Amino acid sequence: MEKKIVNNYGSFDVIFEKSKGSTMWAADGKKYIDFIAGIGVNCLGHNYKPLVKAISRQARRQIHISNYYFSDVGLDFAENLLKVTGFERGYFGNSGAEANEAAIKLARKYGQLNGGDKRKTIVTLESSFHGRTLATLTATGQDRFHPDCFAPYPEGFKTIKANDFEAIKTAFDDTTAALFIECIQGEGGVNLINPEWAKAAADAARAAGAIVMADEVQTGVGRTGTYLASDWLGFKPEVVTLAKGIAGGVPMGACLFRGKAADVFVAGDHQSTFAGNPLACAAGLVVLETVSDPAFLDRVNHAGDYIRGAIASWNLPIVKDVRGKGLMIGTQIDSSIKPFDIEVRCLEKGLCTTTAGSDVVRFLPPLNISDKEIDEGLAIYKSVLEEFCK
Amino acid sequence: MEKKIVNNYGSFDVIFEKSKGSTMWAADGKKYIDFIAGIGVNCLGHNYKPLVKAISRQARRQIHISNYYFSDVGLDFAENLLKVTGFERGYFGNSGAEANEAAIKLARKYGQLNGGDKRKTIVTLESSFHGRTLATLTATGQDRFHPDCFAPYPEGFKTIKANDFEAIKTAFDDTTAALFIECIQGEGGVNLINPEWAKAAADAARAAGAIVMADEVQTGVGRTGTYLASDWLGFKPEVVTLAKGIAGGVPMGACLFRGKAADVFVAGDHQSTFAGNPLACAAGLVVLETVSDPAFLDRVNHAGDYIRGAIASWNLPIVKDVRGKGLMIGTQIDSSIKPFDIEVRCLEKGLCTTTAGSDVVRFLPPLNISDKEIDEGLAIYKSVLEEFCK
Ligand SMILES: Cc1ncc(COP(=O)(O)O)c(C=O)c1O
Ligand SMILES: Cc1ncc(COP(=O)(O)O)c(C=O)c1O
Repeated sequence: MEKKIVNNYGSFDVIFEKSKGSTMWAADGKKYIDFIAGIGVNCLGHNYKPLVKAISRQARRQIHISNYYFSDVGLDFAENLLKVTGFERGYFGNSGAEANEAAIKLARKYGQLNGGDKRKTIVTLESSFHGRTLATLTATGQDRFHPDCFAPYPEGFKTIKANDFEAIKTAFDDTTAALFIECIQGEGGVNLINPEWAKAAADAARAAGAIVMADEVQTGVGRTGTYLASDWLGFKPEVVTLAKGIAGGVPMGACLFRGKAADVFVAGDHQSTFAGNPLACAAGLVVLETVSDPAFLDRVNHAGDYIRGAIASWNLPIVKDVRGKGLMIGTQIDSSIKPFDIEVRCLEKGLCTTTAGSDVVRFLPPLNISDKEIDEGLAIYKSVLEEFCK
Repeated sequence: MEKKIVNNYGSFDVIFEKSKGSTMWAADGKKYIDFIAGIGVNCLGHNYKPLVKAISRQARRQIHISNYYFSDVGLDFAENLLKVTGFERGYFGNSGAEANEAAIKLARKYGQLNGGDKRKTIVTLESSFHGRTLATLTATGQDRFHPDCFAPYPEGFKTIKANDFEAIKTAFDDTTAALFIECIQGEGGVNLINPEWAKAAADAARAAGAIVMADEVQTGVGRTGTYLASDWLGFKPEVVTLAKGIAGGVPMGACLFRGKAADVFVAGDHQSTFAGNPLACAAGLVVLETVSDPAFLDRVNHAGDYIRGAIASWNLPIVKDVRGKGLMIGTQIDSSIKPFDIEVRCLEKGLCTTTAGSDVVRFLPPLNISDKEIDEGLAIYKSVLEEFCK
């Protein structure tokens, strides 16, 4: 079988064919509980009726039109997304990397307008991840993402240590265009940002004349129990980027702006052929309506607390920490064990998980995962962790 | 009404609600003939039954899974796409810009492996367009896309004049990683590349140790009457990028490689969350099967020749040239008239067109546009051009 096009992930030899809720079935009939939702994408799980219906209906009406015109669903989704998030304007793209490319361009133009050629630096956090395009790779605060083979990388990026109050004092000056915060570092290890630190860093960046941007590609769309993680972090970014779950699995990203960042982009500054196409917007409307419901978000918080509580209650010696917020969950494992080996064993036993950083097993289940599926998945996880304790 | 999210194009005040074939209807009931297909995206028109069915079916089965695993439709699409195009491996993305980011990274790694840090330059063509991310903007051979506000741009890009045989002689050396050819410059003005020149340039680039890449984001997927435009241009690129029509309107891009470029990327070199997701692949399968049929491609050629022939036969004094290939069509207009004014007037009369370069009206209709819709559209176009002749 031809697998030549999709092997950039070093993929597992599992071929999925169908799915329902938070359960997936491989071609050989084997059943898997889905604790990663396509790396945080399938926020309403699989085969979620209202989402399937909206996609099917919009596929008939109009899959795509050019951004020279408007679509009714595009306007609806934009209006509602701005209302729910409290942002003033925005721009759609097709991925997290594209949303962040838009944010980077916006930050630079903001810098140019408010300090000329010298105010161009974007400050990101160590251990952050912002994407795989050349500029978002450069923004990513992990050296292993900057191999010589892809150089030269664009200039104008700098990193500081997250949660380090000392670092704030000297981090920003009249060369800083923006501080760009990944709200919980997903790829980096499910590392929480201290809200006090985030606020202090944002204040310092603003005092130096910069704007503050939040990468919520992984934390946004209800993942951490509020629609945006920056809502509970409290630092009120001028720019936020979204992707992953925004359209329930249809490729889409968004870069939203307000305040000092609201009027930076003018027509022509940034474009993309597919951006905000009616199919994605129709799916996005269902997700937005479902996820922004306070009762839905309450359930996300309770389910997350339940999962973290369960793992902690097992008192397993190899578990060093259980952390995260909402349904973004990391289990830090003793450094003697490779989390990848746990992932492999979980998969063999019918549970999809992923890793993060060097020592973390990560869960990003569908936000509407059922209690039953949670318990089924946790039973497998427990049995695997116990194997590794032996 | 809220239009704050989608105005980066300086959009027209038309809100589309539904569509069928190559006809679209606005919210006010007005009918439009679609001669641009969402800028070359809706290659099978609107509400094309087999495409709608495939999308609806796949939305039920599985919209998205992580690239850690495989999907049956993903493997099918990859296998068939490689078979039809004659490439060996590939990588999916979510847009033209993302496909080109992958190509740029691949070219640089190829350079590193075949000449070290110094072989990193990517040579593109003047008047080309490669996308709106920072690196693809830099690759774009038009200065107006490099405003100071987005600087600093990444290093390592250089342009040469297309169709200039002299330029080839000094263009490539041991610093050249790749020659990147946009096969027909779409945004630049529907400018054809001379096949003899493309072959000579490719030979010279290869003689200097570089690979040759084709940006077929706009020309690919049957647009010019063969599945790839590089097939009739004959320069046999090692890398080709696709997007636009590849999945009939579902956001998707692809970067395919062969020969010296086949084994450059290894697992981990490049990734994207949504890339090649099952929904896009299911749509892509329908497009690929339909468009790669020789009879379908014959019709594309005939329809294109018919449209160009009709416009030329009107013998209008303001028409300076009618050019293009297949259903990628440009009318060069006398410099006293702004093509944008023609686009506006066409829209008022119920025909969607777009512009290209400084003096061209461009058509990129659905590849399966009916004879009746072609004639309806041409009648409007003729009446508008006649108005401008007065
Ligand atoms: C925080 C963050 N930003 C950006 C990205 C890149 O998103 P994408 O893979 O859709 O380009 C990711 C992907 O994992 C992410 O987690
Ligand atoms: C030749 C070419 N390359 C790249 C792109 C960028 O594609 P996208 O808008 O999907 O990012 C375009 C878009 O018009 C294009 O025509």
